[in-house]
Amino acid sequence: MPLVRIDVTEGRTPDRVRAIADAIHRAIVAEYGIPERDRFQVVTEKPAGHIIAEDAGLGFDRDGEVVIIQIFTQRGRTIEAKQKLYAAIAGELGALGIAGENVFIGYVENGPEDWSFGFGRAQYVTGELAVPAKAVA
Amino acid sequence: MPLVRIDVTEGRTPDRVRAIADAIHRAIVAEYGIPERDRFQVVTEKPAGHIIAEDAGLGFDRDGEVVIIQIFTQRGRTIEAKQKLYAAIAGELGALGIAGENVFIGYVENGPEDWSFGFGRAQYVTGELAVPAKAVA
Amino acid sequence: MPLVRIDVTEGRTPDRVRAIADAIHRAIVAEYGIPERDRFQVVTEKPAGHIIAEDAGLGFDRDGEVVIIQIFTQRGRTIEAKQKLYAAIAGELGALGIAGENVFIGYVENGPEDWSFGFGRAQYVTGELAVPAKAVA
Repeated sequence: MPLVRIDVTEGRTPDRVRAIADAIHRAIVAEYGIPERDRFQVVTEKPAGHIIAEDAGLGFDRDGEVVIIQIFTQRGRTIEAKQKLYAAIAGELGALGIAGENVFIGYVENGPEDWSFGFGRAQYVTGELAVPAKAVA
Repeated sequence: MPLVRIDVTEGRTPDRVRAIADAIHRAIVAEYGIPERDRFQVVTEKPAGHIIAEDAGLGFDRDGEVVIIQIFTQRGRTIEAKQKLYAAIAGELGALGIAGENVFIGYVENGPEDWSFGFGRAQYVTGELAVPAKAVA
Repeated sequence: MPLVRIDVTEGRTPDRVRAIADAIHRAIVAEYGIPERDRFQVVTEKPAGHIIAEDAGLGFDRDGEVVIIQIFTQRGRTIEAKQKLYAAIAGELGALGIAGENVFIGYVENGPEDWSFGFGRAQYVTGELAVPAKAVA
């Protein structure tokens, strides 16, 4: 269920781009306990200048290797769970050599009825998929 | 009002891409009763590998022709209305030969004050547009 | 914090594209009082036909120069604040010669815990960043 949009600057190899996507997914699976194949990612490589990401006043610089991650998923996770997820994503990307400065995450919530994985069915409503326990408010 | 992002893999003709967008819009108009010209779609064609969409554990395979549909629209529709919408989208795409396995939908809600269709005005707030009856909570 | 997605049609110079992004950011800074460097924008240039934006029944035509703006930001702003923001965006873009007909805005809200600006930390939760006063519900 999480639909994750990943925006990165052009110039990486396909393997590198895939490794970034894999790393983000590993963090979500580890922290949220979702199925390995509950993976929906849209990756976009963009020309320099088409991603503008400053520091929100925090006092650091990014180096052009910023990774913009936008996670759409079901509501119900605690603040602590989200914090652990962000840390895990930064950790996984750090293992690839991506600096903490370059990991930007935004998160948007919806409900179980807001997903259809195929066949025009809302599988969390029909019961074909169980709503993740931790995502029940 | 619905803003619909449609991500597909490269390799289709422009007519085919347009037909997919048209099909999705027809389903929304039919199910939600919105005006025909209440149409806002952003289509993106992506290289193979930049859309990663597995099965969430449901036990089926997609064939690379997956269509990722993300609908941003006003809150207030019932679960049943959403289910009918998803079925209609899958039905319309099915008529184009797109298998049910390849129709992924995510849905995100906001309010009437969250839209400006032009001129910097919030037309559902000013009354220039009527809030859809079915979308009143 | 606002993450702003900007979709425009191809064919503008890089300077022009940057000017559009700058104009939108100026409006947000002016109206919402956020830090100048609280800037996160993803710009996408798209082939003709990949942005479909009609008039929602309002009775006007766009001229192909439509700018689709999607703002993801914290909840808590009033309807009036949003209306002023939309007007300011249209005003800034108008100063660039972009007609009011061509300014489409959608808005999606989340919470302070839904942002990580770097290092895997949720800086509005940790207190490294202050939640904007106007964004407290």
